[in-house]
Amino acid sequence: MSKRQTNILVFSPNLTDVEAYVESIRKEGYLSVQGATTFEEAEKYLPNTEVILAWKFPTQLLNKPISSSVRWFQSMGAGVNDLVTDPSIPKDMFITRIVDQFGTYISEYVFSFLLDIVKDGPRMRQAQLKQSWDSFTSDTLKGKTIGIAGLGSIGAEIVRKARAFDMNVNGLSFSGKQASLVDQHYFPNQWLEFVKELDYLVQTLPLTDQTHYVINKDILLAMKPNACLINVGRGALINEDHLISVMQSGHLQAAILDVFEKEPLPKGHILWSMPNVYVTSHLSGPSTVEGVSHFFIKNLKRYLEEQPLHGLVDRKLGY
Amino acid sequence: MSKRQTNILVFSPNLTDVEAYVESIRKEGYLSVQGATTFEEAEKYLPNTEVILAWKFPTQLLNKPISSSVRWFQSMGAGVNDLVTDPSIPKDMFITRIVDQFGTYISEYVFSFLLDIVKDGPRMRQAQLKQSWDSFTSDTLKGKTIGIAGLGSIGAEIVRKARAFDMNVNGLSFSGKQASLVDQHYFPNQWLEFVKELDYLVQTLPLTDQTHYVINKDILLAMKPNACLINVGRGALINEDHLISVMQSGHLQAAILDVFEKEPLPKGHILWSMPNVYVTSHLSGPSTVEGVSHFFIKNLKRYLEEQPLHGLVDRKLGY
Repeated sequence: MSKRQTNILVFSPNLTDVEAYVESIRKEGYLSVQGATTFEEAEKYLPNTEVILAWKFPTQLLNKPISSSVRWFQSMGAGVNDLVTDPSIPKDMFITRIVDQFGTYISEYVFSFLLDIVKDGPRMRQAQLKQSWDSFTSDTLKGKTIGIAGLGSIGAEIVRKARAFDMNVNGLSFSGKQASLVDQHYFPNQWLEFVKELDYLVQTLPLTDQTHYVINKDILLAMKPNACLINVGRGALINEDHLISVMQSGHLQAAILDVFEKEPLPKGHILWSMPNVYVTSHLSGPSTVEGVSHFFIKNLKRYLEEQPLHGLVDRKLGY
Repeated sequence: MSKRQTNILVFSPNLTDVEAYVESIRKEGYLSVQGATTFEEAEKYLPNTEVILAWKFPTQLLNKPISSSVRWFQSMGAGVNDLVTDPSIPKDMFITRIVDQFGTYISEYVFSFLLDIVKDGPRMRQAQLKQSWDSFTSDTLKGKTIGIAGLGSIGAEIVRKARAFDMNVNGLSFSGKQASLVDQHYFPNQWLEFVKELDYLVQTLPLTDQTHYVINKDILLAMKPNACLINVGRGALINEDHLISVMQSGHLQAAILDVFEKEPLPKGHILWSMPNVYVTSHLSGPSTVEGVSHFFIKNLKRYLEEQPLHGLVDRKLGY
């Protein structure tokens, strides 16, 4: 097996991950791979590097002469809002993001919370703690209406599972390309109409200039008082201050937040301890070494064959 | 609308339920309906009663002369193991049970627990309590193997949802009628082969002579050490003493138990407080007034038209 010996640099602050990525890439016959976990190591290996596979890369190195041979930057994540607005990344460098890898994880996360809320898991757990026989009748997801903002691979997987739960499924997207997946499709000029009938609103949109703070007080107050909001996209899709004051006023049944304007969410932040707010630590769609390696190696083959890359970011669209 | 004025008696210890049933039956034009909540009230209304719709009925009244006109006994529940073995119920009295009403509730219950366990909900809740940013990678249901014992309407609904989660789905049933629903079907003489490959075993079988204690030490030890057991059927499908000792030895990842040999599960019973045992109060498949009324009224029309009743119990089969 003779592979073109492109120089590849793998970067992450996590040494175990870096070692695993390097090993899995070498195993495929691409032997010219270096791993780096710090600014200094990245600086050392950048000269002659053509391809970067990275998480939390020190991008300020990318517009320096040592990076002049870098042509392609593959992020290990799905969200690239930081990268597209980063002035250090030369305009002619390809940026790709991971796509089609998170649908399973994120949809399982979403339904784990929807079911825990609708079946009243907290009441069941409380009853067990108290050893109290509490045979109550829970509600069902069946017949409820879920709205999914963003109908990419993640949104589509949530749609598919919502069907198995016999929910009504609406969607909002910019392109409308997947409108046929949902019962009712809305465009971004129809946010108010979109949200007003929903029992559950799931935010999976990428963060761009168009979607920043797209969920504000007006949208939240247009939702049904007992609706639930789920954010598995990016924190700044939602104006957190608005969400906090709207929920403090007693509007909305619950908010399930995996992403925040500032991450990690600081200790003592009010969202950690608000009733009916479920906080998780940006874990709904994990970039696993196995999944990312698989995606990267397929993309590397396309790169070497000069075929279009998967997950290529359009910096004007922002994703 | 002229309806034959059959005398109907509704019985439940719960007065609110009885009133709701009586009202919903009268609304359909069946005006000769009495409600009772106690032994004495039942005794008073039984003479000339032809149809009983009941929960926890004092069956010792049924072989007395006051019950001589009763022809049909509709239970408000799905499980009728108590009724089929009850010597007070005359052999020529039809017993029917509720069928096709619990699939939604029970399958939502099952997936709420499967997802909470596979996504590690307890760890997420613990992190929030401690305000600690804990971004871990959870496992997925995708690719896991679920085995469903009992492929009636409840089992079939669990199969359908398991497909949406991309699980491998095996099943065990007595009749084999629904074998085509599952990837691999087993008969009751193949319990050991059935359970040995499973990550999740869901018990939905009715309790009969053939299924009493069908899950014993041998079956439990044949399961994978990290498998989960879910019981939404009847408590005595599982030998609880065997389950307790097998789990105390460290075998099995979790048991999710909605039904018990003795209900309510007594305070202080070890199952309430064993690690990795999730106890709920026989609530996975609630008999809602709305659902049971709907079922009963459809069945009442069939009864009056002398058509075969839905959910008719075969006392030899035991369900």
